[in-house]
Amino acid sequence: MAGEGVGKVLLTPIVEETVSSRSKVTVVGVGQVGMACAYSILNQNIVNEIALYDVVADKVKGEMMDLQHGVLFCKPVKISAGTDFSVTAGSRVIIVTAGARQKEGESRLNLVQRNTDIFKSIIPPLVKNSPDALLLIVSNPVDILTFVAWKLSGLPKNRVIGSGTNLDSSRFRFLMSEKLHLAPASVHGYIIGEHGDSSVPVWSGVNVAGVRLLDIYPKLVDESNPDKWTDFHQQVINSAYEIIKLKGYTNLAIGLSVANITKAILGNTQAVKPISTLVKGFYGIQDEVYLSLPCVLGSQGVTSVVNIRLNAEETEQLVKSAQTLHGVQSQIKF
Amino acid sequence: MAGEGVGKVLLTPIVEETVSSRSKVTVVGVGQVGMACAYSILNQNIVNEIALYDVVADKVKGEMMDLQHGVLFCKPVKISAGTDFSVTAGSRVIIVTAGARQKEGESRLNLVQRNTDIFKSIIPPLVKNSPDALLLIVSNPVDILTFVAWKLSGLPKNRVIGSGTNLDSSRFRFLMSEKLHLAPASVHGYIIGEHGDSSVPVWSGVNVAGVRLLDIYPKLVDESNPDKWTDFHQQVINSAYEIIKLKGYTNLAIGLSVANITKAILGNTQAVKPISTLVKGFYGIQDEVYLSLPCVLGSQGVTSVVNIRLNAEETEQLVKSAQTLHGVQSQIKF
Amino acid sequence: MAGEGVGKVLLTPIVEETVSSRSKVTVVGVGQVGMACAYSILNQNIVNEIALYDVVADKVKGEMMDLQHGVLFCKPVKISAGTDFSVTAGSRVIIVTAGARQKEGESRLNLVQRNTDIFKSIIPPLVKNSPDALLLIVSNPVDILTFVAWKLSGLPKNRVIGSGTNLDSSRFRFLMSEKLHLAPASVHGYIIGEHGDSSVPVWSGVNVAGVRLLDIYPKLVDESNPDKWTDFHQQVINSAYEIIKLKGYTNLAIGLSVANITKAILGNTQAVKPISTLVKGFYGIQDEVYLSLPCVLGSQGVTSVVNIRLNAEETEQLVKSAQTLHGVQSQIKF
Amino acid sequence: MAGEGVGKVLLTPIVEETVSSRSKVTVVGVGQVGMACAYSILNQNIVNEIALYDVVADKVKGEMMDLQHGVLFCKPVKISAGTDFSVTAGSRVIIVTAGARQKEGESRLNLVQRNTDIFKSIIPPLVKNSPDALLLIVSNPVDILTFVAWKLSGLPKNRVIGSGTNLDSSRFRFLMSEKLHLAPASVHGYIIGEHGDSSVPVWSGVNVAGVRLLDIYPKLVDESNPDKWTDFHQQVINSAYEIIKLKGYTNLAIGLSVANITKAILGNTQAVKPISTLVKGFYGIQDEVYLSLPCVLGSQGVTSVVNIRLNAEETEQLVKSAQTLHGVQSQIKF
Repeated sequence: MAGEGVGKVLLTPIVEETVSSRSKVTVVGVGQVGMACAYSILNQNIVNEIALYDVVADKVKGEMMDLQHGVLFCKPVKISAGTDFSVTAGSRVIIVTAGARQKEGESRLNLVQRNTDIFKSIIPPLVKNSPDALLLIVSNPVDILTFVAWKLSGLPKNRVIGSGTNLDSSRFRFLMSEKLHLAPASVHGYIIGEHGDSSVPVWSGVNVAGVRLLDIYPKLVDESNPDKWTDFHQQVINSAYEIIKLKGYTNLAIGLSVANITKAILGNTQAVKPISTLVKGFYGIQDEVYLSLPCVLGSQGVTSVVNIRLNAEETEQLVKSAQTLHGVQSQIKF
Repeated sequence: MAGEGVGKVLLTPIVEETVSSRSKVTVVGVGQVGMACAYSILNQNIVNEIALYDVVADKVKGEMMDLQHGVLFCKPVKISAGTDFSVTAGSRVIIVTAGARQKEGESRLNLVQRNTDIFKSIIPPLVKNSPDALLLIVSNPVDILTFVAWKLSGLPKNRVIGSGTNLDSSRFRFLMSEKLHLAPASVHGYIIGEHGDSSVPVWSGVNVAGVRLLDIYPKLVDESNPDKWTDFHQQVINSAYEIIKLKGYTNLAIGLSVANITKAILGNTQAVKPISTLVKGFYGIQDEVYLSLPCVLGSQGVTSVVNIRLNAEETEQLVKSAQTLHGVQSQIKF
Repeated sequence: MAGEGVGKVLLTPIVEETVSSRSKVTVVGVGQVGMACAYSILNQNIVNEIALYDVVADKVKGEMMDLQHGVLFCKPVKISAGTDFSVTAGSRVIIVTAGARQKEGESRLNLVQRNTDIFKSIIPPLVKNSPDALLLIVSNPVDILTFVAWKLSGLPKNRVIGSGTNLDSSRFRFLMSEKLHLAPASVHGYIIGEHGDSSVPVWSGVNVAGVRLLDIYPKLVDESNPDKWTDFHQQVINSAYEIIKLKGYTNLAIGLSVANITKAILGNTQAVKPISTLVKGFYGIQDEVYLSLPCVLGSQGVTSVVNIRLNAEETEQLVKSAQTLHGVQSQIKF
Repeated sequence: MAGEGVGKVLLTPIVEETVSSRSKVTVVGVGQVGMACAYSILNQNIVNEIALYDVVADKVKGEMMDLQHGVLFCKPVKISAGTDFSVTAGSRVIIVTAGARQKEGESRLNLVQRNTDIFKSIIPPLVKNSPDALLLIVSNPVDILTFVAWKLSGLPKNRVIGSGTNLDSSRFRFLMSEKLHLAPASVHGYIIGEHGDSSVPVWSGVNVAGVRLLDIYPKLVDESNPDKWTDFHQQVINSAYEIIKLKGYTNLAIGLSVANITKAILGNTQAVKPISTLVKGFYGIQDEVYLSLPCVLGSQGVTSVVNIRLNAEETEQLVKSAQTLHGVQSQIKF
């Protein structure tokens, strides 16, 4: 209630306001990526509460204030922030962007261990404060860290996911759409597997209006194709490196990708998106690793996985990625 | 057309695509503020083309790529970018965020002169490439630089505006709404005048549902009010300084404010917003200076100005701001 | 789960889908008004589930199918419908548009009694199936029927509201905005009291950018004003009659008004809107009657009422309306 | 300008307002279908001006007023209406829903001739008032009437289109998505050819995440499939009949479909949608007939057609539809 002063004169209270956590989202880590996620979610009116969590008190307060000052221009959203996990309580989706960046010359394992140590201090209290939440991991290397978060959380696998190749697939579709002069949403195609260098483009599924490009143009991904469609996959892989070289970091596309995933979850839409999920049991993979496959998303997280038919080469790449990731994971100290 | 290769097999061309500049917006300067503007405009599906212009080729290319990779998650928008003004051609609104930041110990005049020199190299070619565009200046000090842009552009005054106190007013309404536990959009109030330290809150217009707070609580802005509503104005003034101290810069709220203004212009809405306009002739001001007043916005820019009744003190503050700005302006070397 | 056949081959189930009633809305009565409400809510992507209830099985099934066939073009929404109250279970907002229309020569009391008899058969089972729901009554005469629904529901007053003068106010603001060549959202003004003939325009609150029109133009609502602003209120009153004469019914504006109220509730926004609420205790009214006042809306329904200052004449009109309504209500047979 | 009275005191004019026809859409015919189109377009904030045209003065005025009274709850849109074609001037898209309904026992040719006579009186003046507009025909039988409109308009074929099987495809995808428990937008499939009874479902293109259902479940459309997927096509064909039987007409889904097409055109998106286009030259069709194929839509209308690979049976059905339509068309008296 408005309490004393002018509010008391202005308003007659009828009932206590309730704190509604109906669609609260927490963003953990308020760097460029975290804030691109929060900003997209605010801009797109996806939720009615956004909480920001970070260990750096000044930064998280500054970002909160900057968001709050723009709320007038959006649908009303409550913005809270802090360095205490209580601010995250009652979230439905927790987007984790926190984590250390790779130092020059640092091994991947070393980076993973450093980020695991960070996750050890944040995942348990996050889950404790929001026992019904779904964890959406964005920090890199995203597949391993989603596994780490799953292990640390004690949550069922469907409620711990990684942003995975939703972004790689978006980049892929953009490049193809530019070539064909079509809307990106009208050029369908999936990149699956590990987010980044060893990702797998599923050429057999690339289609426009249900017309498989490989059917009408069999040399699509041959060396003989003067248009070099195979380069599109290479460009996707290079994208992050190139953008980091050009502007210092990537944040805008990943922010939109995360907002897109969040919308599908909160809306319980059963939309299919390529995101990182536990792939043990798929394509002969025996280990507990996370990789991206086309997943059906709803308020429970991943409700199903679409069984894509892969050829021998694609399957092999996926299995190899799984083995590599498992190799790293087995050396993590929890 | 899709040309050679698979596109030629996939598609039967019917007519040449046209480059439609129906709702093209250019953002000049791709720093944190410029990109927050572009990102909000993309997120909110306001336009069908966004062009980014900057002198730093790498940075502008990196930001373009990062936006492009997320277009799939939005309504289709064409994203272009470059260091050549041709990329901005045919814009309907040009948002200028370029400009130098104040150096420690630098005089205001010196900063204005440095930014005027930058504007001399960008405003004429921008206008030449988009003769029908409206200029929306965001660079600081926004009121003087909007005047500078107007002078350099040769455009009629209604088509050169500054983001002005649209943001200050949003901050003001947010603070009051928090106090009253109401949606910011339901607490009405305007801050006018100079964006920043010498801005003027119009307390007489502050209302909820048409109920003037000063009427129902006359001591609202007295020292005797334990709730210290006058502090809200001080907090608005301090906001930018505080956020810069906390996170290094402000960008999120100004990005939303600029998107809000852009939407009103492109939609030809005749919505009223406090933005920086040429105030010569208002409240006895004789000089050509820009200050914020509630303006009616449409596709021609400012179609009317709302005649707010100011008391003697408020009028005096406004006139004094005008004189100060005019003093600085008269020393600028064009 | 997809079960047998191709679905079984296509998908690997991970977890059972849940029926999420996070933002389920039920529309009771699928006539022109009910369907305009449902259609606006679908178009504006406000909810993730819409249930339609009506006693006419064919009609409700036809409307459901017609909505379902368009869901592809919206955000995914579950559409269900039926003649059994179980279809409404778990709603957060129940929009009641059911009710008989006035027959020629029928007394108001007779109409109220007929609609009360309908409400007796629907309100209790609706509340039983959705004990946490908020009732939003749209059926006419809306103020009396909201009182009836409140009595029949056993719910606290904050959770039973009527669409009231939200529409009258919108019509009022549209007419004034046309006159001033401004966006309707920039012309503020409230019509309160009884929805329809005896509604009360609060001229003292009519303002643009906080500028009270009565202050700058004291003869605004005098007979001497050649612009006849008083006519705007008369036109608002006549609107429904005129539109019914022209097209047979009104539905489009009320549908948008109801979507607007629903959005404020589901978003827990604390926005202020003029809707029908229990006014006992306001302005000296002693009876349990519903009339429209500016209410603060959130997920609990009405959290506060804004204390508008009315002059003697306005207060009198309101009190008189209350007495008239109470007179009718006291004759209703429950 | 606000002119006399309070507006003159309230506002200082700066520049004349312009009538911006940047995104004006006209709806011709304000029956249930026309108004569902207009209402969806208003709800979704697609345009900044909607004009309604009809020969029935009362009805068109009533619908205009009803829309206007709800504009406050949307983005500002100018709503105009009338029985004079001047109200449609400067439109970018003209949606034609006017036309007679089939009388009991009336031959198709007779209905076509009656509607051609109506089109003769509306198409030329519509084109004269909006020479740059694109015609989107919705009246049934849509394929023949789109041909008629094209002939009468003198416009290039890319600028005259019919709503075609965009709705049939949406129904088809909804039914399949229900079966698979997926979002409709994640189940891809096209129905092409004639809107209605002789439409052709392209089973070879039906896919989820690029996985062709025919590949993973070859008996998908066999009689032996216990799930009877072939029934989905029959249900699509029956939909209109069934809904008309249940509620008297269909309007909601077609309204959303038309809004969806309009958005693609105004946004110059190059999105692919199945709409009715001139198919002479496709699949060996020699006659000037309109049928639905997946078209690339932009501000010029149809910029390309996607070359779907049809099997012999599908091709035959398409050719046969073309011959039937041409047979009817050759008897029309222009």
